[in-house]
Amino acid sequence: MQKRRLLLASTSKIHGQDYMAYLQTELPDFFQGIKTITFIPFARPGGITFDEYTTVAKAGFAGTGIKVMGIHEGDIAENIENAEAVFTGGGNTFLLVKTLHESGLMQPLRQRILNGMPYMGSSAGTNLAGISVGTTNDMPIVWPPSLKALEVIDFNINPHYLDPDPNSKHMGETRETRIREFHKFNTQDVVGLREGSWLRIEGEDIFLKGEHHARCFRQGQKPVEVPPGKLIW
Amino acid sequence: MQKRRLLLASTSKIHGQDYMAYLQTELPDFFQGIKTITFIPFARPGGITFDEYTTVAKAGFAGTGIKVMGIHEGDIAENIENAEAVFTGGGNTFLLVKTLHESGLMQPLRQRILNGMPYMGSSAGTNLAGISVGTTNDMPIVWPPSLKALEVIDFNINPHYLDPDPNSKHMGETRETRIREFHKFNTQDVVGLREGSWLRIEGEDIFLKGEHHARCFRQGQKPVEVPPGKLIW
Repeated sequence: MQKRRLLLASTSKIHGQDYMAYLQTELPDFFQGIKTITFIPFARPGGITFDEYTTVAKAGFAGTGIKVMGIHEGDIAENIENAEAVFTGGGNTFLLVKTLHESGLMQPLRQRILNGMPYMGSSAGTNLAGISVGTTNDMPIVWPPSLKALEVIDFNINPHYLDPDPNSKHMGETRETRIREFHKFNTQDVVGLREGSWLRIEGEDIFLKGEHHARCFRQGQKPVEVPPGKLIW
Repeated sequence: MQKRRLLLASTSKIHGQDYMAYLQTELPDFFQGIKTITFIPFARPGGITFDEYTTVAKAGFAGTGIKVMGIHEGDIAENIENAEAVFTGGGNTFLLVKTLHESGLMQPLRQRILNGMPYMGSSAGTNLAGISVGTTNDMPIVWPPSLKALEVIDFNINPHYLDPDPNSKHMGETRETRIREFHKFNTQDVVGLREGSWLRIEGEDIFLKGEHHARCFRQGQKPVEVPPGKLIW
């Protein structure tokens, strides 16, 4: 994975800010030299159409001078082969993975990323980079043939990572409890990325950016709070 | 479905109370005449074993004079055929459904319920009664062969239904947003059962019990708040 270049954001926006505003210094740096980003709108937040979602992404990149095109505009397989860079937006992870598996895009996209094409994800699109999407927070509104993901990183991500609310009277499981249950049946590490955090990955180097620590889970061990900087735990 | 008898609880306990304490008046009424309940521990909250979970359920029924046995104690298929009543506990819905499908129990259990055997569920066990478990809140820590559920009611349930928190700065989807997304791809009604609510179903009659309203979602319509009593909307 020496060639990979990834920007994996926990969320597309943080409270009170515009779409991708908190990434406005990171984006031009990561996408330096890129003229057009190919956008994968398959996660369809709120069930909006591919076109509607692509319009949102175009607006998000408007200030950067980089053009955005939807992967569905023209031949999807050709668009993956010719993409300068890919950005997969958030929404429903099950819907995203189902559409990617059924359109046969998972392996071609993976190969392009391993060969060095820059990949950016936010939320569901960040989940997609992991070994599986088994640590998504989403509702299974559709049924994909598999939970296998791109596996361009050797761990899973839990985006929108949420600390337990000490005042909550709700009896649903905390995020940490869910990830501990995940580790009863799965061996891969899980990185809990808080909103406002992102990973910048250049080859073998993984950096946590933004102002928050990440909460990192390894099977059979206590979770670790890792500060921004090189992600090691 | 004239013979069905169901008790479907949103949660096994409410904040600050013991396991099933809030159901202590309902349980003896629903299970009148039943000597032994067969417990399905497959949802394994926190990844505990079938035996450990069955011990929890036994303690929950200790005050009722009703015996509890785990479905895994002896031959599972025979235990379903001979059960006087079944209770499926909460935990991880994906794990529950996977174990039921893989052990071939889904159809036999469904038939017993349609023939009048009393069925109780809480949380994941309540989800299980619906058309699918596509409205679960759980993390897909394992991957079942299908999301199809018992279909002993003609709608889906969202247990632990949670109203939006107006003070939250978290950008994850609200429960209502998730259910609206579900309805972009699925047609069945969804009943959001708040913690402390349960459904008591006798044949064709469905009653909402407990102190809360249920929030009921129909595809293409505005959600409706339905008060305790006969569930009609």
